[in-house]
Amino acid sequence: MMRYSLVNGQALNQIVTTDRGLLYGDGLFETLLLEQQQLYLWTYHYQRLCEGCLRLGIAVPDESLLLDEMKQVISHAETERSIIKLLVTRGDGARGYRAAAPTPHSATRIIQLFDTVQSVELTKQGIRARICNTTLGKNVKLAGIKHLNRLEQVLARSEWQQTDIHEGVMLDSEGYVIEGTMSNLFLVIDDVIVTPKLNECGVHGIIRRLLIEHQASLPLPLEIRRVQQQELYDASEIFFTNSLIGVWPVQQLENHRYAKVEIACELNQQVQTWQHEFFSA
Amino acid sequence: MMRYSLVNGQALNQIVTTDRGLLYGDGLFETLLLEQQQLYLWTYHYQRLCEGCLRLGIAVPDESLLLDEMKQVISHAETERSIIKLLVTRGDGARGYRAAAPTPHSATRIIQLFDTVQSVELTKQGIRARICNTTLGKNVKLAGIKHLNRLEQVLARSEWQQTDIHEGVMLDSEGYVIEGTMSNLFLVIDDVIVTPKLNECGVHGIIRRLLIEHQASLPLPLEIRRVQQQELYDASEIFFTNSLIGVWPVQQLENHRYAKVEIACELNQQVQTWQHEFFSA
Repeated sequence: MMRYSLVNGQALNQIVTTDRGLLYGDGLFETLLLEQQQLYLWTYHYQRLCEGCLRLGIAVPDESLLLDEMKQVISHAETERSIIKLLVTRGDGARGYRAAAPTPHSATRIIQLFDTVQSVELTKQGIRARICNTTLGKNVKLAGIKHLNRLEQVLARSEWQQTDIHEGVMLDSEGYVIEGTMSNLFLVIDDVIVTPKLNECGVHGIIRRLLIEHQASLPLPLEIRRVQQQELYDASEIFFTNSLIGVWPVQQLENHRYAKVEIACELNQQVQTWQHEFFSA
Repeated sequence: MMRYSLVNGQALNQIVTTDRGLLYGDGLFETLLLEQQQLYLWTYHYQRLCEGCLRLGIAVPDESLLLDEMKQVISHAETERSIIKLLVTRGDGARGYRAAAPTPHSATRIIQLFDTVQSVELTKQGIRARICNTTLGKNVKLAGIKHLNRLEQVLARSEWQQTDIHEGVMLDSEGYVIEGTMSNLFLVIDDVIVTPKLNECGVHGIIRRLLIEHQASLPLPLEIRRVQQQELYDASEIFFTNSLIGVWPVQQLENHRYAKVEIACELNQQVQTWQHEFFSA
C-alpha cells in the first residue's frame, strides 16, 4: 500500500488526465530503497533519471528540489524498510504526440512512499525463475533508460501466477537473453561474470552499474556481451540484481537446477556493504 | 484545449498517481471524430478497444455504459467538429508489474472532449512528409492494438519542428516501412494499393480497416505486405489515413514530389461518405 505521495511538492495523490505520463507513458521512473532513513544509491538513481530526461527531451528536475521533496516523503516512513518511487513525466500537454519545448518547471514530479519487508531467505537460498514468452522490442533511442513504457514487462510478469517463481528471463525479438522482468541478469561462465549488452533494449540497472564500475573488486572478471539462451544452462551460476533486492541467486531456471550460489551470495554481501557505507544520501 | 472530461462517469479531470495507466502505460486509447453530434465509426473503435483489453488482460468496459458516458461528454461539445479521446487503463494497482486479475469494474475509463477545426486544404492539395529516424521495436503481443506505450511516436514526432511538414513515416528496426507517427500508410504501386503488414508493430487504424473491409469498392486492388523504403519513391502516390484526418495525400516526401493525388482524394471522398452514411453512432 502507498503510505504517502507528493505531486510537484504538494501532498496529493492525483494528477490531471492530460498529463503526458498517462497519455503516452511519456516519462521516467526510479525505485529506491530506504532503510533506517538512509536513501541508498541516490546519486546513481538521479544520474539515470537525468540521462533519461536528456534522451527524451524532458526538463531535468533540480536535484536539491528533489532532495527536499524526498526528505518530506521520508519523514512519513514508519517501517524499517520502505520503497520510494520517483516518477518524472513531461508534464501536462495538449492532445497529440508533439511535445512543447521543455521549460524549467514543465515536468511533473511524483514521489510515492511504500512500506515493504525484506525477504532474506530468497537472497540466501536462491529463487526459482522461468523464461518468458513475451520478448523485448529493440529501440536504440529507448534502450537503457527507465521510461514509463512498460507493457512488455507487465505482459511478461502476467505469464505466471505461481508464488514460488520470483522472476522471469526476458529475451529480445531475436532470442538473445537481455534481463529479468524487473532486474538485470548475470551469468557465471568459465570463471567469468557475464551480463548482456543493453544497447538495443533493456534497462541499465543501478546495481548492474555498481558492479560494472567496481569490477576490479569483484572475485571474477566481468564481461558485457551478447548472451544466447543456451548459455543460461551452460552457466555454473546465474543471478538477478535490482535496487530493492540487491542480488538474487537463482536456484532453478525452468527445470534446470544450479549447483552453486557462491558468487551471487558474495556479491550480495558486497553490494549491501557498499550501499550502506558509501552510497547513501 | 480540453473542454470536458469524465473519469469513471464522474466529471473530473484527475486520476490517482497509482493508476497503472500512468505507472506503466498499462492501458489503451481511442481517438474519435465527432461532427454535428455524430460520433463516427464507434463500432470499429469499440471493437479495437475490446481486442486491446483482451490482449492485455484488462477488464472490457461495458459498451452501453461507455455510450451513456459518451452522450454526457458529447452534450458539452460547442464546436461543429470535436475530438473525443477515450482511455481505458488497467486501473489502480499495487507497486510492481504484476497485475491483479481483472474484475468487472477494475479498469479506469477516461473520456475527454477537445475542440478542433477541419483543414480541408491539406486533404485536397496533399501534405509534406519526412522519414523518421526513430524506429518501431517489434513485439507481436503489442502489434496492432492502440496501447498507451507511445514513446516511439513521441520521439519520432519530436524530430521536426517545421510547421509545413505534417507527418513522418516510421520504419521498423529492420528498416521496413510500417506507418505514420499518428496514421497508417498506403502506397499506389503499379495500379495496386499497398499497405504494410502490421503483425510485428504498428497500429491497426480504423480507416485502414474500413478500406480493407470494403476493398471490393475501391478503384484498385488492395494488397497487405512488407514494404521496403525504396518503394515509397517508386510509388505513383502515397497517402496517410486516420480517424480524424480521413485520407491525407502526400505531395512531397523528403525531396521527392509525387505527380498524383487522385486515388487518395477519391478514397477520402469515399471514407467521408461511408462514415457519414453508415458508420456513425
